[in-house]
Amino acid sequence: MPNLSRWIDDAADQVATLPGIGKKTALRLVLHLIRKSPEEVAKFAQSILDAKTNIKSCQECHQLSDDDICEICKNPTRNKTSICVVQDIRDVLAVENTGQFNGVYHVLGGLISPMEGVSPSDLHVESLIERVEKNQAQEVILALNATMEGETTSFYLYRKLSPFSVKVSNIARGVAVGGELEYTDEVTLGRSIVHRTPYEMTLKR
Amino acid sequence: MPNLSRWIDDAADQVATLPGIGKKTALRLVLHLIRKSPEEVAKFAQSILDAKTNIKSCQECHQLSDDDICEICKNPTRNKTSICVVQDIRDVLAVENTGQFNGVYHVLGGLISPMEGVSPSDLHVESLIERVEKNQAQEVILALNATMEGETTSFYLYRKLSPFSVKVSNIARGVAVGGELEYTDEVTLGRSIVHRTPYEMTLKR
Repeated sequence: MPNLSRWIDDAADQVATLPGIGKKTALRLVLHLIRKSPEEVAKFAQSILDAKTNIKSCQECHQLSDDDICEICKNPTRNKTSICVVQDIRDVLAVENTGQFNGVYHVLGGLISPMEGVSPSDLHVESLIERVEKNQAQEVILALNATMEGETTSFYLYRKLSPFSVKVSNIARGVAVGGELEYTDEVTLGRSIVHRTPYEMTLKR
Repeated sequence: MPNLSRWIDDAADQVATLPGIGKKTALRLVLHLIRKSPEEVAKFAQSILDAKTNIKSCQECHQLSDDDICEICKNPTRNKTSICVVQDIRDVLAVENTGQFNGVYHVLGGLISPMEGVSPSDLHVESLIERVEKNQAQEVILALNATMEGETTSFYLYRKLSPFSVKVSNIARGVAVGGELEYTDEVTLGRSIVHRTPYEMTLKR
């Protein structure tokens, strides 16, 4: 691409480091940004700096938080004995959006992946064990991605938690609500048959 | 979406003001950004502020530039009597990438659009007329989008330029190189037949 302006190129290079943003899109975004007023651009840049400076990690569940303890862990109406283990903060938001869970979360910060050099010690596993003991947890729900890394991590956590008197469950895998059997892959459809639920349970929802 | 952190939300709101970036993508980008080191985040924000602060508009062709006159207008090997009129800087880059044009550009800064309240006086039309006179331009190539706004603007410029002894041409509309006739829309295919070119010209390219 011809080099028209050093400043535009620098900014576009920075924006292109974001995931899913290529060189062309980055340039488009930068050209859009510099068309805004200087105050708006300053506000844009400052909001990102503020987020980086002010954000903390919740000491209980490791999700991002404005305080030392996040809103969910602080909330006295949430059931502290039910812990939902997720990969990162976006999964917390996804589960929260369902409105189906009233326990607390535990953010691992990744998944075990020998390929990418992520071992259990890189994840918040020890603090999960501590929490299970401290909260006298009744249940740990593993809500990890249905990928090889997710399944490996689930199995590792299941083994780690087995010495404790805590129920370990996995989120259900099966045909998506509104999904058609014909277009569901065979592994998912197979699991949905193996893990079929009594019809009365379907009525409850 | 549940409100987990004021800082993250503020930054995501700002990022979501960019074109083509929704709330979910914005959150993903912010979460990716804050995982970088403080220095990297500072560099990211500064690059955008720098672009806004330092960028100028070329006094000749109105495209974005580091100096008062852009690299292309400064270049003595470019043919100043051939002016390619485009909508914005991204179109300059697109034409430059073809390597087929050795003249100079004129960035209108938009297209005439009564719907969006853009009139000719909002665009760099007067300065185009001045340049045509000053440079004793031989040719003005209209390289505007093939939309209603683009065609309206082209027609307006054609009328404005007709008193001058300058050739006004339009970029060719037709079947894309590598495109299949079967999948070309009928208006484009129709134009490609009306504006057919002598076969010898095809061989030149």
